[in-house]
Amino acid sequence: MRKQERIRDHGVNIGEFSPGLNNLITDVKGVTIGHVTLSNEDMQTGVSAIIPHQGDLFNEKLIASTYVINGFGKTMGTIQVEEMGTLETPIVLTNTLSIGTAAEAVIEYMLERTPEIGRTTGSVNPVVGECNDMYLNDIRERFINKDHVLTALNRASTLFHEGTEGAGTGMLCYSLKGGVGSSSRIIKLAHGTYTLGVYVVTNFGILRDLKIDGKPIGRQVKERLQKNIEDKDKGSIMIIVATDLPLSERQLNRILKRSVTGLSRTGSVITNGSGEIVIGFSTATKIPHNPTNQLLTIPTLHEDEMDHAFRAVGEATEEAVLNSLITAQHVIGRDGHERPSLADLLLEYSLNIG
Amino acid sequence: MRKQERIRDHGVNIGEFSPGLNNLITDVKGVTIGHVTLSNEDMQTGVSAIIPHQGDLFNEKLIASTYVINGFGKTMGTIQVEEMGTLETPIVLTNTLSIGTAAEAVIEYMLERTPEIGRTTGSVNPVVGECNDMYLNDIRERFINKDHVLTALNRASTLFHEGTEGAGTGMLCYSLKGGVGSSSRIIKLAHGTYTLGVYVVTNFGILRDLKIDGKPIGRQVKERLQKNIEDKDKGSIMIIVATDLPLSERQLNRILKRSVTGLSRTGSVITNGSGEIVIGFSTATKIPHNPTNQLLTIPTLHEDEMDHAFRAVGEATEEAVLNSLITAQHVIGRDGHERPSLADLLLEYSLNIG
Amino acid sequence: MRKQERIRDHGVNIGEFSPGLNNLITDVKGVTIGHVTLSNEDMQTGVSAIIPHQGDLFNEKLIASTYVINGFGKTMGTIQVEEMGTLETPIVLTNTLSIGTAAEAVIEYMLERTPEIGRTTGSVNPVVGECNDMYLNDIRERFINKDHVLTALNRASTLFHEGTEGAGTGMLCYSLKGGVGSSSRIIKLAHGTYTLGVYVVTNFGILRDLKIDGKPIGRQVKERLQKNIEDKDKGSIMIIVATDLPLSERQLNRILKRSVTGLSRTGSVITNGSGEIVIGFSTATKIPHNPTNQLLTIPTLHEDEMDHAFRAVGEATEEAVLNSLITAQHVIGRDGHERPSLADLLLEYSLNIG
Amino acid sequence: MRKQERIRDHGVNIGEFSPGLNNLITDVKGVTIGHVTLSNEDMQTGVSAIIPHQGDLFNEKLIASTYVINGFGKTMGTIQVEEMGTLETPIVLTNTLSIGTAAEAVIEYMLERTPEIGRTTGSVNPVVGECNDMYLNDIRERFINKDHVLTALNRASTLFHEGTEGAGTGMLCYSLKGGVGSSSRIIKLAHGTYTLGVYVVTNFGILRDLKIDGKPIGRQVKERLQKNIEDKDKGSIMIIVATDLPLSERQLNRILKRSVTGLSRTGSVITNGSGEIVIGFSTATKIPHNPTNQLLTIPTLHEDEMDHAFRAVGEATEEAVLNSLITAQHVIGRDGHERPSLADLLLEYSLNIG
Repeated sequence: MRKQERIRDHGVNIGEFSPGLNNLITDVKGVTIGHVTLSNEDMQTGVSAIIPHQGDLFNEKLIASTYVINGFGKTMGTIQVEEMGTLETPIVLTNTLSIGTAAEAVIEYMLERTPEIGRTTGSVNPVVGECNDMYLNDIRERFINKDHVLTALNRASTLFHEGTEGAGTGMLCYSLKGGVGSSSRIIKLAHGTYTLGVYVVTNFGILRDLKIDGKPIGRQVKERLQKNIEDKDKGSIMIIVATDLPLSERQLNRILKRSVTGLSRTGSVITNGSGEIVIGFSTATKIPHNPTNQLLTIPTLHEDEMDHAFRAVGEATEEAVLNSLITAQHVIGRDGHERPSLADLLLEYSLNIG
Repeated sequence: MRKQERIRDHGVNIGEFSPGLNNLITDVKGVTIGHVTLSNEDMQTGVSAIIPHQGDLFNEKLIASTYVINGFGKTMGTIQVEEMGTLETPIVLTNTLSIGTAAEAVIEYMLERTPEIGRTTGSVNPVVGECNDMYLNDIRERFINKDHVLTALNRASTLFHEGTEGAGTGMLCYSLKGGVGSSSRIIKLAHGTYTLGVYVVTNFGILRDLKIDGKPIGRQVKERLQKNIEDKDKGSIMIIVATDLPLSERQLNRILKRSVTGLSRTGSVITNGSGEIVIGFSTATKIPHNPTNQLLTIPTLHEDEMDHAFRAVGEATEEAVLNSLITAQHVIGRDGHERPSLADLLLEYSLNIG
Repeated sequence: MRKQERIRDHGVNIGEFSPGLNNLITDVKGVTIGHVTLSNEDMQTGVSAIIPHQGDLFNEKLIASTYVINGFGKTMGTIQVEEMGTLETPIVLTNTLSIGTAAEAVIEYMLERTPEIGRTTGSVNPVVGECNDMYLNDIRERFINKDHVLTALNRASTLFHEGTEGAGTGMLCYSLKGGVGSSSRIIKLAHGTYTLGVYVVTNFGILRDLKIDGKPIGRQVKERLQKNIEDKDKGSIMIIVATDLPLSERQLNRILKRSVTGLSRTGSVITNGSGEIVIGFSTATKIPHNPTNQLLTIPTLHEDEMDHAFRAVGEATEEAVLNSLITAQHVIGRDGHERPSLADLLLEYSLNIG
Repeated sequence: MRKQERIRDHGVNIGEFSPGLNNLITDVKGVTIGHVTLSNEDMQTGVSAIIPHQGDLFNEKLIASTYVINGFGKTMGTIQVEEMGTLETPIVLTNTLSIGTAAEAVIEYMLERTPEIGRTTGSVNPVVGECNDMYLNDIRERFINKDHVLTALNRASTLFHEGTEGAGTGMLCYSLKGGVGSSSRIIKLAHGTYTLGVYVVTNFGILRDLKIDGKPIGRQVKERLQKNIEDKDKGSIMIIVATDLPLSERQLNRILKRSVTGLSRTGSVITNGSGEIVIGFSTATKIPHNPTNQLLTIPTLHEDEMDHAFRAVGEATEEAVLNSLITAQHVIGRDGHERPSLADLLLEYSLNIG
């Protein structure tokens, strides 16, 4: 894979905790990510697939939760995740008008792998999220088809590019080109060492609000730009959190909620027109689909240990957002709309962010 | 239209309030219902479309809310309805593995009618609900396509059949054939006369729990049946509530929550494996999509008047469930699975329910 | 203790599951109940205390949850129960204007037993619920003092009277005298036999809505009464659910929510002016206040086993409400306001409810 | 009143929007604040009272909402505020073991002003919040009595001191002395000019996390300090939001939720052991307690206008937290525990924050 310059390569180290091996969500063992990128003139969109573990997703469910930062969004599958506390499919992210297609594809993917669905057992709950890439992408054309989604699912691996890729292809962030980004943190507790990883699709914010590790980089860039590129912020963000911490769904939910601290530190005010939704899962426990006539035993943290996870998720979310920005490339899309790359602008204006 | 024998035709009058003109959800002015029914051997499924008003749905949104009785369900669109308090599309109900297709169709329907989506304004939030008809229907075949959904949307009118129709085609209720049902109530307040209507897709319950106006009809039928038809209850229900009462989304939510009283009085214990979800809207106020530089003014009830609506929604839900049962016909579907009609059994056993 | 005629003594057997030894919430091992009853002319009020287990409540917390049926109520402590999933104090129920006093008393009770609070550890979360007994009781006088609450806590035992006792002293139900009531159910699963118990304070409903096992007893009584005793229903109910089922807080919450099915079957329409709040706990797991450097392991049911608990909680709630009614005695209270006893009326009118 | 040096006096101007006349929550017309401060050796605690408007609070309710950032807290009254969408009493803040006393006092205050409560109308819902001041205050002594609370209520006025005052007397923030703080913002919309104000009690955070307008001041102070003053963060915050924006309770809730952005920008990671709770109200509409046989009409913003309020609440929360810190004085309390003043340290170390 080509090497990308990430925010740490620019000298910016967010927070106190160490990142995992690749500083990616896939540092959580078993998690893989697949991208399909459609980038050609008016078509600037894509699909991101998150496979939460490499076993039988339906029959070995993961403890999961979701949190709505702002609900102007169309994410599917959250009702069942909240009621049952489990995830039983991959998570697919794409553009907002393609969620139906993505749901169809996830259902097809699961039916193929799980012949008992609709026969000896019931239904399946696809989890699909979205952001709106209409500024750069001709979203009304609905370029995404089922095969794109299945391809993203089948391509999933532990290494992936950030920036203008997958569901991030056509997204904007802080009036610049946004995209997908990731980061991870190592959490050392008395009983073990754990990993928490975050993957984001960024599509929110206006330039002057952008802060990098507290520095008002957005304002500095804005002052140097020839023309105003700030639109009304209609932005949104999808945040996927994976961890191998042993957690109840309630504890996981508390962690998801803290991703807002990292998001806020990059400058977001969480505007009205945004779907900002967090979906998380723990790989520590597999919940069997079928009962076994025995009690389940769920290992969990003591509540007093949660602060480590709270700090980690804030740091990883902040860094994932910054990674999505710094790796994103300049794009010219629908009707000649364009968005500059943060990395290009920093170079052009000799701005040092580290 | 052919005339169907409804629960009142059997001498059962639920509650105190009078029903509206047709005792249907469409007694709420502007509401229409469309059905597509696919019934042929292994194919026992369908689509129900609810059009909430006859104007421009996207630009004249209705105040709306949702309530999850039990969340083992895949209903889409509820996150945005809760955040924004509005509905901007029709509601489509179908079988559980066809929600992606239904979402695609609703998006297509809205894009056609609203050219500004994805151009000068953002996205659209399709609301799609489901139950699982796998016992009678070969759900893995996914018989529903986009055209079925668009047909249901285009057929919507004020009169419609109940029972083995639309999304209710393949559903079970109290171990008998379930289906779609409806009922309405007139609410007289000092400042006006209002209507509240309910439409249900019933797919829950086991025979011995069925109560009709308090009478243990389910037990009586069970005692007479030659063989046991009680499976494990995996059932679910979709409840759509429409009203012209002027309400805030909070008040509407309080009403939706009370539909459980009527559901419980028919005998439901609200089992684990069920999506039981209520979606409601008020036609009293249209919220413009675009701001007008003026304040909105929202007429609402005084909270002290809410009890009338609470009683009405319980009565209408109870009666809608009973109507879905009493009008449903005997069906033989997938792999010869069959479910008897309540009306047939009452006749056969000379049971009087009135 | 004097023997009371309960609803089963009248030939009414609610539901399918067997009750526990005493058909009381205290059939769940470790649970005790204490009552203080103040009944004298304008003073018709009291306190109910529920001790969830007999160990160190603060240092051995129980998994707990709460559910708001209707939120016109002042119950305290629910925010922390929901966030942390645990209960760390007794639960005290009293009249609505005495919740501050009750909270003070619970804090005092806990400080005495737990010297480390406010020294080496933080605060304590008192859980206090209420109903409004103003019709029979001069509530503005606030007769309850801290000693009453401490007395109720210290009196707690496994046997207790129902009806016009404790927090139920001044309450109304279905326009008749209400009070406190209880019931329990045995749940047999593959891995063990468990108990679920319910304790209620009933203060809701209007006479004509009362149903006893489906029979319209309320209407029958109403027809025979000389004068109308139906006021506007401003009623409320506190429902306490105890069980030794091993459950997560999410699972427990799902159970609490199903208490509405039993409540509805007695005739409630859940009116506006009511605090109807459910608080539940499982005695199966003790969560230590202090971390131990090890993971916790929480035994839980498989979700497929939950239906038994769902049915049990509905049955026990229905029966507890009926027990509160049938055991309550005629009371003349504030300003000569009075409420008849259901048992007296059934006798007077020779009505057979079994 | 003595003049206090606030964060703007140190050259720090948070955000883009202009503050109101006094840059206090009381810039929202009708809102007043009263403090009682108990500061003497082991007694370091107090009461803050917020009067939401100067009319008849019970009979002219305000639209209100609450939001739980983290629920390790004992705030009372939120259940009814959420169900009914209204506030009908003052809000009182104090230490965590005095909430019962505070509730009693609020009930007494309301009974005195509202003779119909408990006679011709029902109950009253006191809203009481808390933080835990046990490090500096001997909280087990429960120094607060009803008269302290009534005094705070009766003292309420438009001008008040910040820092080591009222409920903030014994609180810690970022390992320094915390306290109470306030700030306001002016919001200009097409149809009028509005004010939003925030009042906080700060009791959270560890020193090295403190950021002032993005600058890592906490780390800079920590490096210069002779000894470690960082404890485990068990902190909490109460945030009161007042505005004259015409809003529905749903819209208000969306605003309250955005206070987290400002909180996060000061450095909070929202730790486990904290009650972090937001309570807000709009003075734009009075909801009459008694119905009038007419519909209510509620003026509200169009949703597209909400971004202004979202930005304003983040800015005002951030500034209110900083004001609480910069105005707080060095305190030596229980057992000689002490906490330094940020202003003292900045002076001592010649640190410039502007």
